[in-house]
Amino acid sequence: MNWPPKYDPAYVPNPDAEHWDARLETMDPAERDEVILDKLQGQVRYAWENSGFYREFWQDAPVDPANLRSLEEFARLPILTKEEVRVEQEANPPYGRFLCIPPDRVYRIHGTSGTTGRPTVFGISRGDWDRIGEAHARILWAAGVRPGGTVMVAAVFSLYVGSWGALVGAERLGATCFPFGAGAPGQTERAVEWAEMVRPAALYATPSYALYLAETAREMGVDPRTDFGFRLMFFSGEPGASVPATRQAIEDAFGCYVVDQGSMAEMTPWMTNGGCRHLQRGMHLWQDIVYTQLVDPETREPVEMGGEGVPVYTHLERESQPMIRYWSGDIARWEMVDCPCGRTYPTLTQGIYGRADDMLIIRGQNVFPSRIEDVLRGLHEFGGEFRLVVERERGYLDRLTVQTEVSDSIWASAGEAGPGGLNALRDQFRDTLRRALGVGVSVELKPEGEFERTQFKARRVIDLRQ
Amino acid sequence: MNWPPKYDPAYVPNPDAEHWDARLETMDPAERDEVILDKLQGQVRYAWENSGFYREFWQDAPVDPANLRSLEEFARLPILTKEEVRVEQEANPPYGRFLCIPPDRVYRIHGTSGTTGRPTVFGISRGDWDRIGEAHARILWAAGVRPGGTVMVAAVFSLYVGSWGALVGAERLGATCFPFGAGAPGQTERAVEWAEMVRPAALYATPSYALYLAETAREMGVDPRTDFGFRLMFFSGEPGASVPATRQAIEDAFGCYVVDQGSMAEMTPWMTNGGCRHLQRGMHLWQDIVYTQLVDPETREPVEMGGEGVPVYTHLERESQPMIRYWSGDIARWEMVDCPCGRTYPTLTQGIYGRADDMLIIRGQNVFPSRIEDVLRGLHEFGGEFRLVVERERGYLDRLTVQTEVSDSIWASAGEAGPGGLNALRDQFRDTLRRALGVGVSVELKPEGEFERTQFKARRVIDLRQ
Repeated sequence: MNWPPKYDPAYVPNPDAEHWDARLETMDPAERDEVILDKLQGQVRYAWENSGFYREFWQDAPVDPANLRSLEEFARLPILTKEEVRVEQEANPPYGRFLCIPPDRVYRIHGTSGTTGRPTVFGISRGDWDRIGEAHARILWAAGVRPGGTVMVAAVFSLYVGSWGALVGAERLGATCFPFGAGAPGQTERAVEWAEMVRPAALYATPSYALYLAETAREMGVDPRTDFGFRLMFFSGEPGASVPATRQAIEDAFGCYVVDQGSMAEMTPWMTNGGCRHLQRGMHLWQDIVYTQLVDPETREPVEMGGEGVPVYTHLERESQPMIRYWSGDIARWEMVDCPCGRTYPTLTQGIYGRADDMLIIRGQNVFPSRIEDVLRGLHEFGGEFRLVVERERGYLDRLTVQTEVSDSIWASAGEAGPGGLNALRDQFRDTLRRALGVGVSVELKPEGEFERTQFKARRVIDLRQ
Repeated sequence: MNWPPKYDPAYVPNPDAEHWDARLETMDPAERDEVILDKLQGQVRYAWENSGFYREFWQDAPVDPANLRSLEEFARLPILTKEEVRVEQEANPPYGRFLCIPPDRVYRIHGTSGTTGRPTVFGISRGDWDRIGEAHARILWAAGVRPGGTVMVAAVFSLYVGSWGALVGAERLGATCFPFGAGAPGQTERAVEWAEMVRPAALYATPSYALYLAETAREMGVDPRTDFGFRLMFFSGEPGASVPATRQAIEDAFGCYVVDQGSMAEMTPWMTNGGCRHLQRGMHLWQDIVYTQLVDPETREPVEMGGEGVPVYTHLERESQPMIRYWSGDIARWEMVDCPCGRTYPTLTQGIYGRADDMLIIRGQNVFPSRIEDVLRGLHEFGGEFRLVVERERGYLDRLTVQTEVSDSIWASAGEAGPGGLNALRDQFRDTLRRALGVGVSVELKPEGEFERTQFKARRVIDLRQ
């Protein structure tokens, strides 16, 4: 085949059609495996020939990357982790030797926020950007977005590819795009006013933010069910859209239906984990765009359909910075379900509901305990140990409280200054953490020695959500 | 002619070329007037035939909008103000009868933040969006941006078309786009880290933000001259890039050159006021893209070249929501200068340096005294009068202090509660104002009767800048 595939930028299905590409979406899974293998051969050979990183990473692989003969052979290539990407990008900044095109052909730069040390950088070519738009248009079509409908994107536009991915898909589909963003002071009140005025058909945000928007609307005397007119909401960034209570709360608040989406930023087009308008919970795996395998978190061996494991993702049409067998660290269960949409993809029936490692997601922001430890250990007032308490605030927004010990001498002198002394110290901790993490946290000060020490892996996270 | 014009989306000049379109940019101004008239005839006739608003607005015009015979005839059409746009959009939400295309053909929705009451909404078609990209690419070319260079956009992506306009122009030109955004907690520190890692050639931001970025970098031990490598910066949203001291401060801080740009959000492509890499101060008027006339602020009669007046702007290729003879409320001076770039456009030699009305721009955000008055008058603690003090903070960031009277009874009871009582009240005023204005302000409380009352137009703004 010709790799990467070319798509007709003018193509849009008839509005009544259930599928953007009925053949690819409803074909027999065994037949689809041939489509996948064909694209995979092109992608892997291309990476082997153009990426200094993969050339090195696969040098001792038990199979020939230039001539993969089966999906089973492919599964014998090594798994790539975020840490390996980070190390490579640090050694060869900014993209690492993942980049298979000259740097001056990079069309867009995105990345992760990097609160856990060095951020991850994504260089995306124009061709890849267009294919991301094509893939997302196709998946948004399944979610029920149609040309002429207005899509409001209420998530921050910055490094984060969630908002941009939603935008480029809606653009390609021919929707009216309303890239409102989020995150500035007073912006949610403005979002209420604008949603009431524009009456978008669809919203992209995080589930937490949607509920916050509904609450803000009610405080302003606006009824989110009748005054907005949202017909559907599609989400990524948090598991909420496949958490039944959260999903129900959003559907009740707005009188709309909810679609869960999202793999990882590195894997953009990230909608290839993506529900349709019929699926009550979970996400189909759009295997012919990004190929996903579930593996055992410990052994990393393939998991049978019906089982639980860590999704490992592979780009099938990325010419700029392909991720091949990329370890997500997430936990999900995959099954073949008989969805009324007729798609024959495997489905993550409960969405993504856990993490194999300990990363926290606080209001859509990745927060690593290791980063908090880093920050605390950089403060001379720190007393040596800490705990992280994660709770649900007002039922749905996640709240992180950092309980931190204060060194004996500081504790004593702050105590002498009266309650104001400890308050000032607490504010200082809080501001430093907020600055470093990019998300607000609460801080509680404790005297040195308050928490148990261990020589093993400390259990510092107390998760009170659920 | 065929209106609106079509552009070849694949066209890019040779990198050594000074001009994107040498013929249009360097032609004799008299000859250009013919080009302008030709486009203007198309634009005005189109608006007359497709916009219910203009059909009504021009019904008693002394000239025939369907058959304009000269630029002089055109200048006899009425001037359109922001207030008229607002009233029309309120009556016919959301776009008003400005929209000349079916609403489902709107590709992008943007607008003003609307801190002065109802926001203004811009509906933009796909064709217009592409032409905005074409115009901005052409003007960014003049500013010295070239394909393959990286353009970092450090301004918030939301309703504001400044950031989006910079992005779409850089995309069309073939630059590597890095849409970083701004405005979230800790984002400036992240901007420093990323700029150091990515080393962009160009920055788009507001002048204030550029200086803040330099200061933040220095605090982090990063040298903005050597560690970033910015070659040029282009700005809009504030007059700073044509204010010599500000311009010099930025050029010194980063070791780059500065280009001033920007007309108004309503007029997007807003870069048609746009400097080139040779111009030391001010902006060329790209008259064949948006046609600009200077008029007397009082009489609204045309101002001769060399004089000072209010720019009145007219779209020449906007099919969605054209603004025709749109009153900017800004003050500028226009002259014919012999720029080394060879362009034969008139030039706003000192940029835009004043406002005909009293709108304040605080850190890039429009703040209307009338809106502050609105907010204060909604608080029962308010004592009846107030003053607004605008100062330069740390030399370049604008700081707004609201000095507000507190009613006698509240003042007395807060006073009884000790200093904490007044502090809590001050914080309450501050938070309410920040929420309403979308920008942080300082608040000073004064007893009732502190400020002089007048029956004439109150002079409430004390501007300590300059």
